[in-house]
Amino acid sequence: MQLLIDRIIKDGKVYPGNILKVDSFLNHQMDIDLIDKIGQEFYRLFGSCEVTKVLTIEASGIGIACFVAKYFRVPLLFAKKSKTKNVSDDVYSSVVESFTHGNVNKIIVSKEYLHPDDKVLIIDDFLANGQAIRGLADIVNQAGAELVGAGTVIEKGFQGGGDALRSSGMKVESLAIIDSMTDDGKITFRNN
Amino acid sequence: MQLLIDRIIKDGKVYPGNILKVDSFLNHQMDIDLIDKIGQEFYRLFGSCEVTKVLTIEASGIGIACFVAKYFRVPLLFAKKSKTKNVSDDVYSSVVESFTHGNVNKIIVSKEYLHPDDKVLIIDDFLANGQAIRGLADIVNQAGAELVGAGTVIEKGFQGGGDALRSSGMKVESLAIIDSMTDDGKITFRNN
Repeated sequence: MQLLIDRIIKDGKVYPGNILKVDSFLNHQMDIDLIDKIGQEFYRLFGSCEVTKVLTIEASGIGIACFVAKYFRVPLLFAKKSKTKNVSDDVYSSVVESFTHGNVNKIIVSKEYLHPDDKVLIIDDFLANGQAIRGLADIVNQAGAELVGAGTVIEKGFQGGGDALRSSGMKVESLAIIDSMTDDGKITFRNN
Repeated sequence: MQLLIDRIIKDGKVYPGNILKVDSFLNHQMDIDLIDKIGQEFYRLFGSCEVTKVLTIEASGIGIACFVAKYFRVPLLFAKKSKTKNVSDDVYSSVVESFTHGNVNKIIVSKEYLHPDDKVLIIDDFLANGQAIRGLADIVNQAGAELVGAGTVIEKGFQGGGDALRSSGMKVESLAIIDSMTDDGKITFRNN
């Protein structure tokens, strides 16, 4: 998505350790006009998949997934990070390791809102090692629902998570794939 | 907002301890058509205030605030809950006690995204004791920005937080104000 790539080049900031900060427009301050166009683009990519529900994970995926769900005219469901050790019977749960924060989160989704007849599209802001998508896909699987695919805004291609998911047969679409970043701020995009 | 009140009566669930669950349409699964109308209603209520930025707190406020920001055509900024004890120089921070989770969170906003010339509208899903709004207002104040008011979707009027904020001179608009709930599920709305 050229508009997004241009914005990353203009406003993204690269820090040592392969950290890309896009919090001026994507995941702290949000440029709503851009987020709306991102929602529209995911509809273009997955619009034929008969999606019945969009699934994301709190917190920074929620705003993006809202605009995706708006174009599909389906409900959005966001997995919550659970602080409690015990998981009640009325939720599906999985475990997600965060690359950014270096910790492990248990995520939960109420069983009430995912059913075997659902066709689920997973949406998230970043794809690095793919752990968040794996955790969400695990929950879709537990519900017996169908996973139509996953859409992420920015994929760190050099971390391999996206390609591993694609190799497993999952349809994964990222609007910008970064193949390399250097500490002096140069970003190389895939197919660009 | 009658549409919202009707939905709370239809789909809200009351649990002992004054807990109202609206996670089938507001803060776990989200009915995007309703959220969009909520955004439109806040624009009707605050549209004349020359808002330059919408401010909320992760996680469940984000989706709602996105649609508010869409109608105002301004950026959304969401405060993050910080896990680290130390706060860096480049953020404003405050402290928020959560009624729902019974814990205390430090919240942070990057100084880059709030300025003295900003006119800020705070948006959140619930207003109970008002701690979240106080924390966000504290951050607006630290930035030297102007707070035009706060909008919340559901206010638990019987907890007094909203009225205390109004007494302090803040413009606070809640789309549904609950004056009482009984353990057998009866909800009484203010002015309704």
